[in-house]
Amino acid sequence: MSEIRKHYFLREYCIIAEERAKRPSDFAGAAEDSQKNNSEHCVFCGRNEEKTPPATAVYKNGEIFADTGKNRIRSWDFRCFPNLYPALTPASPFQESCEKDPEVIPGFGFHEVIVESPAHGKKLEDFSDTEISGLMKVYRDRVCHYAENEKISYVSLFKNSGKAAGASQNHPHSQLIALPVCPQVMERELAAIRDSHKCPYCVLIEKEKNSPRLIIENSGFIAFAPYYSTVPFEVWILPKKHLSFLGDLSPELLFALGEILRAVLRTYKKVHENLPYNHMFYQLFETPEYHLNLRLLPRLSTAAGFEFNTGIYINSVSPEKAASYLKGDK
Amino acid sequence: MSEIRKHYFLREYCIIAEERAKRPSDFAGAAEDSQKNNSEHCVFCGRNEEKTPPATAVYKNGEIFADTGKNRIRSWDFRCFPNLYPALTPASPFQESCEKDPEVIPGFGFHEVIVESPAHGKKLEDFSDTEISGLMKVYRDRVCHYAENEKISYVSLFKNSGKAAGASQNHPHSQLIALPVCPQVMERELAAIRDSHKCPYCVLIEKEKNSPRLIIENSGFIAFAPYYSTVPFEVWILPKKHLSFLGDLSPELLFALGEILRAVLRTYKKVHENLPYNHMFYQLFETPEYHLNLRLLPRLSTAAGFEFNTGIYINSVSPEKAASYLKGDK
Repeated sequence: MSEIRKHYFLREYCIIAEERAKRPSDFAGAAEDSQKNNSEHCVFCGRNEEKTPPATAVYKNGEIFADTGKNRIRSWDFRCFPNLYPALTPASPFQESCEKDPEVIPGFGFHEVIVESPAHGKKLEDFSDTEISGLMKVYRDRVCHYAENEKISYVSLFKNSGKAAGASQNHPHSQLIALPVCPQVMERELAAIRDSHKCPYCVLIEKEKNSPRLIIENSGFIAFAPYYSTVPFEVWILPKKHLSFLGDLSPELLFALGEILRAVLRTYKKVHENLPYNHMFYQLFETPEYHLNLRLLPRLSTAAGFEFNTGIYINSVSPEKAASYLKGDK
Repeated sequence: MSEIRKHYFLREYCIIAEERAKRPSDFAGAAEDSQKNNSEHCVFCGRNEEKTPPATAVYKNGEIFADTGKNRIRSWDFRCFPNLYPALTPASPFQESCEKDPEVIPGFGFHEVIVESPAHGKKLEDFSDTEISGLMKVYRDRVCHYAENEKISYVSLFKNSGKAAGASQNHPHSQLIALPVCPQVMERELAAIRDSHKCPYCVLIEKEKNSPRLIIENSGFIAFAPYYSTVPFEVWILPKKHLSFLGDLSPELLFALGEILRAVLRTYKKVHENLPYNHMFYQLFETPEYHLNLRLLPRLSTAAGFEFNTGIYINSVSPEKAASYLKGDK
């Protein structure tokens, strides 16, 4: 029998309908994705640096550089540069928006690619401790860089892994889009948080850390399949301490974040050797009430007419089953 | 240069970024979809009626019947039966929800399949006048049937066409899911409508009927690419008269609805011979303030981390270009 489940603190619902998992089509997306890994002519690969716009930040041996003119820095660890097909550009005139609420806002903003390794086939789950904590530092630095820009209201940091997850390049990379407006989804969360006497994320950590949905925890973070799960094997990672954005994380916490993210990605191999997924940071700067969280969404199912019509997702794998499977209980 | 565009009356944004259209990956989804049309063992086909649950409504020569026990009605025009993999079932105990706002609601509801033709390869755009207006009558009847159930708060009527649009069967069919809760997306729209001194849909019809985004209109309806378009070639169809749900439509208006839907689907062939799309009815019964609308979402792009993180869609085809292309202006 299916269940309609409510979000922890929003008036949003999902439907857990495990009967539907029988449908062979359900996990087709992943299978299609498994082979493709063609490195030929990859513009993100080491030694192809001139095929991208000049890098705004190049991490190499613990130092940060930037490409200048036609010069390209080689042998880097991580490389950040403007997306060649930007959704938003700093060239567009900036316009204050949320107050006046105009219908058109010029596409001002920043759209950056963060290449996670010079090696084409490298995967986050195989990163060394140094590599994974290095990437978390890059994440923090780039978010802080754009958060300091007074014209920026929100920084979206995300990773699309696999074609089914919207990746157009399969070289390991993340993306950052800095926006002049704050997304309504974040404003709705913030309004609900401000209506609560206690941080609802702090409350749900207490609830989930002893639940069958807990997957793993370490010194600083907890990873679990949320009670309100919109897709099979959805995972949320939260800092146990109330922190509102990546800029608040100490080096120790950055390492713990990388460690738990890598651990969750390793459990995903139990579902599919090459599971397509998105991960996204939910965070607000200059907003201490917010509680930073990182969400992982495997892309095994396809949102269809019902989801678009209602905003209610039908999920064929309960978070309890998902957590048990990822932990290897069976 | 890209644009950030605001929804007509909600605080939602989309990004129109045409530079991104150059990416060859953008329209991959459709291509993959074009061949598959395998009718072997199709349980929705005429003469395979015993392979589905008993039909709740069978339309045949203008009359309505229902399967009884093991008997199956043959040679039908349209056939409605419970989904074999239901998201919600009437067997689940009903529980009032919106007021008490519980975290779990048993999965009470109805999930119905509406088979649009006994013929496997038949497409809506090729329906005769009789067939398309017949289907609209079925749509109206089934929505009214569930709207009369006092335990039902919302009826979602939608079509998934093509694998990229979430269809697991390629025999032409629509689906209906009747819910015991009202989706927040609809409650948010209704709140904004109640805050307006005039129906914002009536206002936007006035705006769009003389805009470059107009695609087609007939006696009762207008079809246009919305100023706020979340995906390439998105189309909205609205009744020119303020009507809140399908039950309000006269036989003449039902025919006009079928005619304009068929006309829009014919224009979609200019984009792709077999364009994957979802269509969904937005409507509220017993809520005269709401303005019925039908939305078509082609599935040429993949929502990714940014869209999930922000609720802001990046669209690589402006609605002005989309309308011009669909109308055949170039």
